[in-house]
Amino acid sequence: MSWYVEFLTPYEAHMYGLGRIVKSIQTKYQDVKIIDTLEYGRCLFLNGKIQSARLDEFIYHEALIHPALFLHPKPERIFVGGGGEGAILREILKHPTIEKVVMVDIDKEVVELARKYLLSWHRGRFEDPRVKVYYQDARKFLRKEKETFDCIFLDLCDPGENEGPSELLFTKEFYTLIKKRLSENGIVAVQSGSTNLNMLKYFSNVFQTLKAVFPFVLPYQVYVPSFVGPWGFNLASMSALPGSLNQNCIRKKRLKGKLKFYSQEVHNSLFVLPDYLKKNLRKGKVVYNA
Amino acid sequence: MSWYVEFLTPYEAHMYGLGRIVKSIQTKYQDVKIIDTLEYGRCLFLNGKIQSARLDEFIYHEALIHPALFLHPKPERIFVGGGGEGAILREILKHPTIEKVVMVDIDKEVVELARKYLLSWHRGRFEDPRVKVYYQDARKFLRKEKETFDCIFLDLCDPGENEGPSELLFTKEFYTLIKKRLSENGIVAVQSGSTNLNMLKYFSNVFQTLKAVFPFVLPYQVYVPSFVGPWGFNLASMSALPGSLNQNCIRKKRLKGKLKFYSQEVHNSLFVLPDYLKKNLRKGKVVYNA
Amino acid sequence: MSWYVEFLTPYEAHMYGLGRIVKSIQTKYQDVKIIDTLEYGRCLFLNGKIQSARLDEFIYHEALIHPALFLHPKPERIFVGGGGEGAILREILKHPTIEKVVMVDIDKEVVELARKYLLSWHRGRFEDPRVKVYYQDARKFLRKEKETFDCIFLDLCDPGENEGPSELLFTKEFYTLIKKRLSENGIVAVQSGSTNLNMLKYFSNVFQTLKAVFPFVLPYQVYVPSFVGPWGFNLASMSALPGSLNQNCIRKKRLKGKLKFYSQEVHNSLFVLPDYLKKNLRKGKVVYNA
Amino acid sequence: MSWYVEFLTPYEAHMYGLGRIVKSIQTKYQDVKIIDTLEYGRCLFLNGKIQSARLDEFIYHEALIHPALFLHPKPERIFVGGGGEGAILREILKHPTIEKVVMVDIDKEVVELARKYLLSWHRGRFEDPRVKVYYQDARKFLRKEKETFDCIFLDLCDPGENEGPSELLFTKEFYTLIKKRLSENGIVAVQSGSTNLNMLKYFSNVFQTLKAVFPFVLPYQVYVPSFVGPWGFNLASMSALPGSLNQNCIRKKRLKGKLKFYSQEVHNSLFVLPDYLKKNLRKGKVVYNA
Repeated sequence: MSWYVEFLTPYEAHMYGLGRIVKSIQTKYQDVKIIDTLEYGRCLFLNGKIQSARLDEFIYHEALIHPALFLHPKPERIFVGGGGEGAILREILKHPTIEKVVMVDIDKEVVELARKYLLSWHRGRFEDPRVKVYYQDARKFLRKEKETFDCIFLDLCDPGENEGPSELLFTKEFYTLIKKRLSENGIVAVQSGSTNLNMLKYFSNVFQTLKAVFPFVLPYQVYVPSFVGPWGFNLASMSALPGSLNQNCIRKKRLKGKLKFYSQEVHNSLFVLPDYLKKNLRKGKVVYNA
Repeated sequence: MSWYVEFLTPYEAHMYGLGRIVKSIQTKYQDVKIIDTLEYGRCLFLNGKIQSARLDEFIYHEALIHPALFLHPKPERIFVGGGGEGAILREILKHPTIEKVVMVDIDKEVVELARKYLLSWHRGRFEDPRVKVYYQDARKFLRKEKETFDCIFLDLCDPGENEGPSELLFTKEFYTLIKKRLSENGIVAVQSGSTNLNMLKYFSNVFQTLKAVFPFVLPYQVYVPSFVGPWGFNLASMSALPGSLNQNCIRKKRLKGKLKFYSQEVHNSLFVLPDYLKKNLRKGKVVYNA
Repeated sequence: MSWYVEFLTPYEAHMYGLGRIVKSIQTKYQDVKIIDTLEYGRCLFLNGKIQSARLDEFIYHEALIHPALFLHPKPERIFVGGGGEGAILREILKHPTIEKVVMVDIDKEVVELARKYLLSWHRGRFEDPRVKVYYQDARKFLRKEKETFDCIFLDLCDPGENEGPSELLFTKEFYTLIKKRLSENGIVAVQSGSTNLNMLKYFSNVFQTLKAVFPFVLPYQVYVPSFVGPWGFNLASMSALPGSLNQNCIRKKRLKGKLKFYSQEVHNSLFVLPDYLKKNLRKGKVVYNA
Repeated sequence: MSWYVEFLTPYEAHMYGLGRIVKSIQTKYQDVKIIDTLEYGRCLFLNGKIQSARLDEFIYHEALIHPALFLHPKPERIFVGGGGEGAILREILKHPTIEKVVMVDIDKEVVELARKYLLSWHRGRFEDPRVKVYYQDARKFLRKEKETFDCIFLDLCDPGENEGPSELLFTKEFYTLIKKRLSENGIVAVQSGSTNLNMLKYFSNVFQTLKAVFPFVLPYQVYVPSFVGPWGFNLASMSALPGSLNQNCIRKKRLKGKLKFYSQEVHNSLFVLPDYLKKNLRKGKVVYNA
């Protein structure tokens, strides 16, 4: 039997029992590995870091997508930065109000591998007529774009240096651009890195960077077992974001397709942060600049 | 630099960068290692499985202790099975109503190592006059014991076979004994194993075993980063257990000592389980018998 | 950075820093991985076990091929069982007397991957007009074959159970077949497994099995760093095998192509076994039967 | 089950299945771990690097000691730098001509741990009346020392930077001091690091540094399985060192105690280096200076 080892930090690593290495390539932007692990099923690794696992990607993707889409009164036009696996599309399109999804991922090869090898992630949603995929730097794309969006999802590689092609997409400059591309009541949801106690700085830095641009920022976290730690997100908006959601909100939206993780109760619990995490967010002083 | 590797399952392992190996002994009951890891600080391992880490043991211990103690109207007499590190005592004694804590751990050597090497866990609470420690099999102790307790905490090694000396303490027979030793409105809180998606069966088995004895069982989970996955607990009682707690409940108890993780909001969020976990708990069919 | 881990035994493993995973497939017969490691360059793994590494495959292949070919007075017709990488062909064809090489490897896919990805191993020798490659079970092939060979090389997966498709090729029955296919003065050279102190039994078992068929058996070992331990071979013949070789023998053969590891002195040193290994070989009692 | 991982280079590591961690301390000079591994038995690690293993330390220690002692006509007075395990004493005292052994190890705590926990290494030889142990820097000791020695053994941590307290003991300056402390026909034997193909530079650097001081230097290597690679040594002397040894030399010395690895034939084979290693030694240009 053989194993794949991912280093989370210079002093911590995780070992995955290997089934098959489905694909391993170096694209123009990053090292891409699709690996069948024995505990988590198929996994996507970018630059040696796990992005999502067959077993529990539903937790990550439901947690990234549904809080924003349920908080928004009527999400129609959606922008997605990154998210090459396509599971984001699968979740977004469960909302019946969606009219258009623009997805911009810099790495065409990742998306093509996902289409071929990550079927249970995207379930064919790349072919939905409402979806348009562009292979570009999301920053360049949004600079030229005139349209505004009701929800924007940023599912990029981790913040922090040397973490792939997305460093500039965690900056104040980029969030200012995002602000311009949000429609009234628009919400941006940002994948914000591990909230593991030994890696908290990225989460609070992203939070502080968003706070430097948006008056309303709502941090939350979720447990994704295959990520070997809890994971942080932030919602940000120019409009007030309600701290909780009632059952009616969920029901009246009448989703197409079932959810396995997200529910109204879960929604509310996601935003309850323990004291140590609140303190850490308040203490954050670093604002990422371009 | 050297590393310590713990296998979570035959196909998954975690690597901890090593500082110092403080102590490594084989007691009469188990293999005990106290290791200074570079990411989580000092850690206690029993039979190669992490029990708690300096960096985040407060999450585990606050989550085990305070839900039961805040739900109970006036906890005075407490029983603890296991919990050799002493952090449980530290948390229990923050509640001003406590009059007596009986702790029974089978492995005297573990408790002695904890007293010496895990100071930040117990903070000297073993010497508190209200605390009595016995080195025995908790089952044998409780069979002879006449007294009843307001809260009982079972912080034993993981359920499942070949996991150390505590297998019989996860059975219907033992929970029946626990029931007899609970006072009116008494609550038992049980460490119930990982709620990682690839290890869910123990959690639902413990839940079902408690359900076979108690009319009211309340499962919950918490994320402990150093455990490399979310962790499950169950509260059980002969009296109804309220699903949520209001702010007053917390305030009027006037705790001695601060909390870093637990709060009223956190309390309520702990009991919100995602759908996939609820389904899994319902499906559980195994009841552990002696 | 990510890592590949190979278990040598249930209690010992080796970690290779990963560059690129060139190819990972499951053929009809085995799991095949071609991996660029950071310390040893490109490596071939079959069923999770390293077969050869760019950095030091010359040691292994020179040690397998040249002792037999230099001991034989005039090797012309050669049979190779296994050896899909093609480095064996490269070494054999350095001897100017060679007229014909028949190579039989059961796994066509491995040979095709080698042709494409292991260029520095075979250096195009698959196309040499003297070489014929067949994709069959070597046992079946040799049963039908009428021809005899001057040297036979068996470069099969490791002896011992559950080690891939070659178990029957380490048996007394197979060696009896080999004996029939050797010409007068013919020599068979057998890859015989690790001679690491904790894995010695395979080496002595292969030695004893050969002794049950051939009157002359000469065991030897070499150190291959990427194999993480010393490696054993056996020569066997119906004719006496000289214990040492003089410089003339080497010179007069006038090799085409340079050697990096093998020399007359090295030849003689390979057959010097330390006492503990001699003792172990004598103690071996197991003869592998079909 | 748990594991201990040693990094050999930043891109290569070895995993040892753990029995018991016997002792783990930080001395004034280094991190010391005595660990019972499942494949190699008890092992000593200094600064995370394996020093010797119960299973095969006899190979290392016989290879370090006997070539020099058999090449010397009549070794009586011996100096040992390092070698805290005491296995060196065990091997030296097998030679009946020995009158005095001076051992200087900087780290008293290592020697004390060895006395207590590495019994099969030293077999009580620390108590032999001919043995004197000093806890000092070998360099300082030899500067003050007036006496000369017939054989000097340097069994220090690996050459190369950041490898513990012995860096200055691999320099031209130190070897010049050694030269002065050798009697006529005296021989120094130096542990010279891995001869693994990806770590060859240390071996050739030590060789070149000795060559800068001594007219006669004889490099050799041996396979120590638990070292995960072949290991290099050098003999150096002001007198000519014969390239080989005949059987008589061995017999007439009439050793007390048996050898498991070393023999006359093995002696001669140790000094046969493959061409790639000879080339590497010749290419070495670095001379270590203080």
